[in-house]
Amino acid sequence: MATNESVPLRIFSLNCWGLRYVSKNREERMVMIGDKLSRENHDIVLLQEVWSEKDFLYLKKTLSSTHPHSYNFKSGVIGSGLAVFSRHRILDVFFYRFSVNGYPYMIHQGDWFGGKAVGMVQMKINGLMAHVYVTHFHAEYCRERDIYLPHRVVQAWELQQFIRHTSRGADLVIVGGDLNTHPQDLGCRLVRAYTGLRDSYTETGAFDGCENGLTLIAKNPYVCAKELGPFEEGIRIDYILFRGSKCVEVKCESLSITQGSCPGQAIPLSDHEALSAQLLLVPTDPNRQKREPESSEENTGKLAELVDLVTEARTEVKVGVHCAERQRHRAARTGAMGLALLLLELAMALVPWLLPASAAATQPFPRGSFCLLGALCFCLLLLATLLWVFHSGEIKALRSADDHMRLAAASLLEEHRGRTPTPVRHAHGDSPANQHAGSTSKED
Amino acid sequence: MATNESVPLRIFSLNCWGLRYVSKNREERMVMIGDKLSRENHDIVLLQEVWSEKDFLYLKKTLSSTHPHSYNFKSGVIGSGLAVFSRHRILDVFFYRFSVNGYPYMIHQGDWFGGKAVGMVQMKINGLMAHVYVTHFHAEYCRERDIYLPHRVVQAWELQQFIRHTSRGADLVIVGGDLNTHPQDLGCRLVRAYTGLRDSYTETGAFDGCENGLTLIAKNPYVCAKELGPFEEGIRIDYILFRGSKCVEVKCESLSITQGSCPGQAIPLSDHEALSAQLLLVPTDPNRQKREPESSEENTGKLAELVDLVTEARTEVKVGVHCAERQRHRAARTGAMGLALLLLELAMALVPWLLPASAAATQPFPRGSFCLLGALCFCLLLLATLLWVFHSGEIKALRSADDHMRLAAASLLEEHRGRTPTPVRHAHGDSPANQHAGSTSKED
Repeated sequence: MATNESVPLRIFSLNCWGLRYVSKNREERMVMIGDKLSRENHDIVLLQEVWSEKDFLYLKKTLSSTHPHSYNFKSGVIGSGLAVFSRHRILDVFFYRFSVNGYPYMIHQGDWFGGKAVGMVQMKINGLMAHVYVTHFHAEYCRERDIYLPHRVVQAWELQQFIRHTSRGADLVIVGGDLNTHPQDLGCRLVRAYTGLRDSYTETGAFDGCENGLTLIAKNPYVCAKELGPFEEGIRIDYILFRGSKCVEVKCESLSITQGSCPGQAIPLSDHEALSAQLLLVPTDPNRQKREPESSEENTGKLAELVDLVTEARTEVKVGVHCAERQRHRAARTGAMGLALLLLELAMALVPWLLPASAAATQPFPRGSFCLLGALCFCLLLLATLLWVFHSGEIKALRSADDHMRLAAASLLEEHRGRTPTPVRHAHGDSPANQHAGSTSKED
Repeated sequence: MATNESVPLRIFSLNCWGLRYVSKNREERMVMIGDKLSRENHDIVLLQEVWSEKDFLYLKKTLSSTHPHSYNFKSGVIGSGLAVFSRHRILDVFFYRFSVNGYPYMIHQGDWFGGKAVGMVQMKINGLMAHVYVTHFHAEYCRERDIYLPHRVVQAWELQQFIRHTSRGADLVIVGGDLNTHPQDLGCRLVRAYTGLRDSYTETGAFDGCENGLTLIAKNPYVCAKELGPFEEGIRIDYILFRGSKCVEVKCESLSITQGSCPGQAIPLSDHEALSAQLLLVPTDPNRQKREPESSEENTGKLAELVDLVTEARTEVKVGVHCAERQRHRAARTGAMGLALLLLELAMALVPWLLPASAAATQPFPRGSFCLLGALCFCLLLLATLLWVFHSGEIKALRSADDHMRLAAASLLEEHRGRTPTPVRHAHGDSPANQHAGSTSKED
């Protein structure tokens, strides 16, 4: 059982930019991160882009006395990069890999190989069951022509689903990570509206950091100004979100975000800035009168907002389906061309056997080019087949998200109808669902 | 709120064997399945291997009056094959694709292309929140040399995780599907022990079907006797599992399993037999005295059983990791050979440019073979790279499951220690976790 005293809880989140052979000063920065963490003694540390197992093991060793409990979520080809270090014992974990996450042929971007995901760890903090999530979305490489937007919207959708469905037993929910999404972007709005999570930056009592809470800033020497596009100062894409429950209220007392290099250090910790939030867990008095239930207008407003959000998300996902279908079609066309050429070559190769010896004596095509062309056609066919298979899977995943969004919208409308005073007939005598695909409220 | 009357609930589960161009009499059988379902009017229908969207849409149309609510879980390249039809409104859905599921190059088996998974639908039945799961594991093609056993063990592990983490708000949990696992097999034991689900076959009051509840039987004309191996009569691999909660007790009144062709029909519904369970939901009297808590010995026995199960599962997963590493190593070796040959060819091609004209005048290698060999090496390199990437992902997924199992075993041991009378020091003053990675009890 929770004690009646308020308890502070310190959370740290950082995208560590830890890609082997690519990220600059990686080893040096990992030492700095380890030092900082062992010094500052946060309760829970949520890291992203710890791609190298060596780095994870180094941090685990460095933090063994301050954060004896840790977990590294493995996924994809090089790992999800998600890691958790905690002062509190980790009781259980669960992991969900997003169904779409870029393209394997964009090797230089590498997102696909990382297997982006959301990981959950469960721990007891002062008798309260905390569900802590760490996540990382696909990067946004070009805001003007963002081909990954549908993928990121689906990731946001799957994140909110995962949090909603796995946080029912929780007294306390904390989410940290790099959403690669601005606060007003669809993905971020989807997650917040559906889960009821609050943003530590907008809720904090005291704040220390760049203006507007930026977490990818121009003055960080690892950040290329071109990356930031029109946002000259920087952007806010890393978050610590939180939510309490009926037995504990959570407040954000302070939030501090690094601003490039720390004092006395030549280089920053990462290309992203580190977030450090001090939360306060205030146990709710069981005798306290319950909060007034929301008025019908408030509820209707919330439902309308959710319906709008889902509609917007479905539009983006449909764009994604359209693009994926076009890509698949292109792959099919290329494959068909490869196959046709291969068959043509086969027919030409058969000519000497089919024609009388005299007519076939002169081979019209140089042998080397003939074989090379054949091999090229075969490679073309093989690659086109692989692309066709990949994009078929992408289409299935996007359509699956769209199906689910359609169901969620229908559930929201059904609930809305159930709340209007006009009597509505419900199939099979079911009461209008309290818990529906779009519920933001926590189940009692 | 639930009424105080007991409510019957009829569940149907069938692996429909609906692979286009491959499954025999597919269309005819889908018509039979549609007819049977619309006639027998089950509350919830859980289908597997509905691979073709056309079939799903046909069933949806046929059942539109009896089962107005439906959901088709899309996944993989050809779909997960999982579908739900229900008399009760579906409020929300969630879907988890298993992290390992066979090999893409086993095209003739096709499991990888299906994207095997578990789907959940939520519905209110008589005021009770029901979480209904439908799932399908990787097939077992050869019991003596079962290379897919580690994959199936991981699928069972992920299924129990998914059910445990998403069923906290449920009054009632129902799972139906083809686990491709015998009742005494590790996968099946893992799922039952961890989730506390009960097997309708062992719990039923009345049973109608083949002896031992077999669901893949020799007398089904679609079943090849060779498939069954030493189990001449057949095997039991399809299940309906269930669990109540503190507010509702669930009983299985009757279970009926088809036995090949139905009376009056020339062909059976599928190669698997159909399960039809009649459950009874008995609301629990809130004034009734609570059940005696389990004795310490019972609890210790359960914990020991779970620890044994996890240890057994880890052994299997480790075998899987070892096999995947061997495969990856083989791919790396093949790729290296392809690359070396390619470089050798390149060096040979450069000879005419590097040597004096007279020395290079005689090309030692026929041009056609030269090009063909180059192309072959390139294909080899490409395929080996793809295999290397695939098996790296497989290793990551298997290791992730192993990590989680290790944590679960540690949690179980910690809990066991917490229950022994010797006083044990707990880090950070946490009470011994009630909810741990190995808990079978439902959270209150």
